[in-house]
Amino acid sequence: MNARTLRVAMLGCGNVGSEVTRIIATQAADLEARIGAPMELVGIAVRRPQIARDLPLPPELFTADAHALVTREDVDLVIEVVGGIEPARTLILAALEHGASVVTANKALLAEDGATLFAAAEKAGRDLYFEAAVAGAIPILRPLRESLAGDTVNKVIGIVNGTTNFILDRMDTSGAGFAEALEEAQQLGYAEADPTADIEGFDAAAKAAILASLAFHTRVNAADVHREGIADVSATDIASAREMGCVVKLLAICDRVQLPDGPAVSARVHPAMIPRTHPLANVRDAFNAVFVESEAAGQLMFYGQGAGGSPTASAVLGDLVTVARNRLQEVRGAGESAYAQCEVLPMGETRTRYHIALDVDDRAGVLATVAHEFAEHDVSIQTVRQEGRGDDAQLVIVSHTATDAALARTVRRLQSLDTVREVSSVMRVEGEPE
Amino acid sequence: MNARTLRVAMLGCGNVGSEVTRIIATQAADLEARIGAPMELVGIAVRRPQIARDLPLPPELFTADAHALVTREDVDLVIEVVGGIEPARTLILAALEHGASVVTANKALLAEDGATLFAAAEKAGRDLYFEAAVAGAIPILRPLRESLAGDTVNKVIGIVNGTTNFILDRMDTSGAGFAEALEEAQQLGYAEADPTADIEGFDAAAKAAILASLAFHTRVNAADVHREGIADVSATDIASAREMGCVVKLLAICDRVQLPDGPAVSARVHPAMIPRTHPLANVRDAFNAVFVESEAAGQLMFYGQGAGGSPTASAVLGDLVTVARNRLQEVRGAGESAYAQCEVLPMGETRTRYHIALDVDDRAGVLATVAHEFAEHDVSIQTVRQEGRGDDAQLVIVSHTATDAALARTVRRLQSLDTVREVSSVMRVEGEPE
Repeated sequence: MNARTLRVAMLGCGNVGSEVTRIIATQAADLEARIGAPMELVGIAVRRPQIARDLPLPPELFTADAHALVTREDVDLVIEVVGGIEPARTLILAALEHGASVVTANKALLAEDGATLFAAAEKAGRDLYFEAAVAGAIPILRPLRESLAGDTVNKVIGIVNGTTNFILDRMDTSGAGFAEALEEAQQLGYAEADPTADIEGFDAAAKAAILASLAFHTRVNAADVHREGIADVSATDIASAREMGCVVKLLAICDRVQLPDGPAVSARVHPAMIPRTHPLANVRDAFNAVFVESEAAGQLMFYGQGAGGSPTASAVLGDLVTVARNRLQEVRGAGESAYAQCEVLPMGETRTRYHIALDVDDRAGVLATVAHEFAEHDVSIQTVRQEGRGDDAQLVIVSHTATDAALARTVRRLQSLDTVREVSSVMRVEGEPE
Repeated sequence: MNARTLRVAMLGCGNVGSEVTRIIATQAADLEARIGAPMELVGIAVRRPQIARDLPLPPELFTADAHALVTREDVDLVIEVVGGIEPARTLILAALEHGASVVTANKALLAEDGATLFAAAEKAGRDLYFEAAVAGAIPILRPLRESLAGDTVNKVIGIVNGTTNFILDRMDTSGAGFAEALEEAQQLGYAEADPTADIEGFDAAAKAAILASLAFHTRVNAADVHREGIADVSATDIASAREMGCVVKLLAICDRVQLPDGPAVSARVHPAMIPRTHPLANVRDAFNAVFVESEAAGQLMFYGQGAGGSPTASAVLGDLVTVARNRLQEVRGAGESAYAQCEVLPMGETRTRYHIALDVDDRAGVLATVAHEFAEHDVSIQTVRQEGRGDDAQLVIVSHTATDAALARTVRRLQSLDTVREVSSVMRVEGEPE
């Protein structure tokens, strides 16, 4: 083939970026055959070009002037693996404006301000691809964007953060508490020294926003996602889950529901109990998985490594091949699809189920009092288990679905009852038909 | 948008086809938004148009003249859900030649003569998409073709036939024999009255050929696939697997191996033991799953419903949306990628592992005799378990990897030994690092 060489610029050269350069160099012939033209890496912008000396790349590739690199008129494709909001946003916008197509792994930016980026890509007639932004190597965005384009997705449940999955898995298998499991994760390199973005659910919330946007053809931003982390998950919660045949996972849950005046969507991240028979329950260690329920396809699950330089580079390169093919044909792939414009429900209006464990006085009438509070708030009880322990007792209650607001009000009311000594565990329950 | 209407013709209107027509009708607005233009179903070819009266479609849509339908000059897209080699091949070739893009679910035809179809699509400048041909609703072909286009796939292991998975799952959970489990599958509608295509592995072999072709960028036909069915899997085999912590599955296995003079590939379908800890082991009932190992992405798994009208229709429609978008832009998606042209190894040269159970005389020297035969054939033993039972004993041997030919020769030799009363179980072992 005599096609012209496609010129690639890269922003950032950390774990992912250096793996991308390695594959571009070692798999050049394969990539050329798959694209239909050779690719050439023409520049890499890094904050301190002098430190790049350790990489097996010509030093002249490196520059500190990212803006000059992405606006070079001879650059066809830009890979952004810097992360964070700025300067990534400004650089991606400049790249698109100057005619480059962009592949990015930047979940935070897409979840915060995807609309600006998509509009710029649309205006420039270029591609903006981002498979690596969610669940690393697992092809999940392309299936949602393309494979399921003829179907109606009703639910997406993802384990999209490896750090928290590792911690919860350790708590489940070893009985360790949260602090102990976090320390182990840090020692093994699964958690950062400052683990806030992972354990508080910020990372998962950005991914939930991206998944919900694609699944429901509706713009969902990080700010629309209800977010709770796993720092308060206790060994007691894990044990309660086990007694119910469940396991605790940090889930990113995107729902599409039919309301009287049309479909609405919700997106949330919180720890939840799921049955051990659910396909997501067997996702161990730092693996990720995304479970999808759609009208025609039914249940699907996508499983793999959600992070790491090499898996993320695989996703970046998959996008790069598509975007490069599109450049050669002077076409664009599918852009943002937000035509459905569904209402995004606040958490209070989202329908969930609760598992609640209470320490109560062991005397007649307590269950009646507790049950009365549920009824008062229009929350229906699915199961109650009562266990006496000396002069107090434990009540374990699982509700039917109700709005999250009604459930939360019920729990607050239970906490104020004289006969309730302590609400020892409250957790949502997912992944089970009622 | 003022784009022109895309005109769709369909060949066949059984389970899958009628579900496709239902979705095209009920989701018209969504499909138009996703494609960028409206779609209109202009004709459906069926063998007996008079029986189509039961479908909620205008009777004038139906025709018995499939050739006239697909060669109509106003048809942009043809959906083929008839199956079988002829007349499907002739009709698809005619459709491409007359300028239509084609979406097909026809695994048998693609596996037998994909090359002819791909060449016709290439020549016509049209798309030929076939996600529905493998693993029903599970998006697996698109991830292999596109998401992993920047990676190197080394192995694909699929549970791609729901009927056999249902039967083996029942044998595992209930202890039933093959005949009994098959009967249950037939009663529940999971197996056809003539189950040959499923239980003898023909269906899985066609899918293995398609998976290997896409994964390794090499043309692999059904005839290149080594095929063994599950009719000989006994309750004893299932019990032996259980004792080893394994479960028996019918697997479609595609391997890429480095030989001294370059990479070679193999594709095979046979029952095999896999560890219960392997992600594929938990694929129950009639579900399908495809496990992929690639150099950068690592381990991936795709799980879902592998058959049925509705799931298959989801895959057809996903392709239809992509192909329709391409038509509007007058471009093609990626065509056949067979540039790697790897050698396809015969089964005898494929490296596998064997689990072998022998009934032997319980006397000194038997193990030495047996071990000698393995050594003679250059097969290394990984584990041996010996159990005395009266005056005979059982030996259970698991080998390291060796060529299938060497393993088969070893088994034949063992069968001829005086001290070996019976080779009671021989099965390959997969999915475990050595």
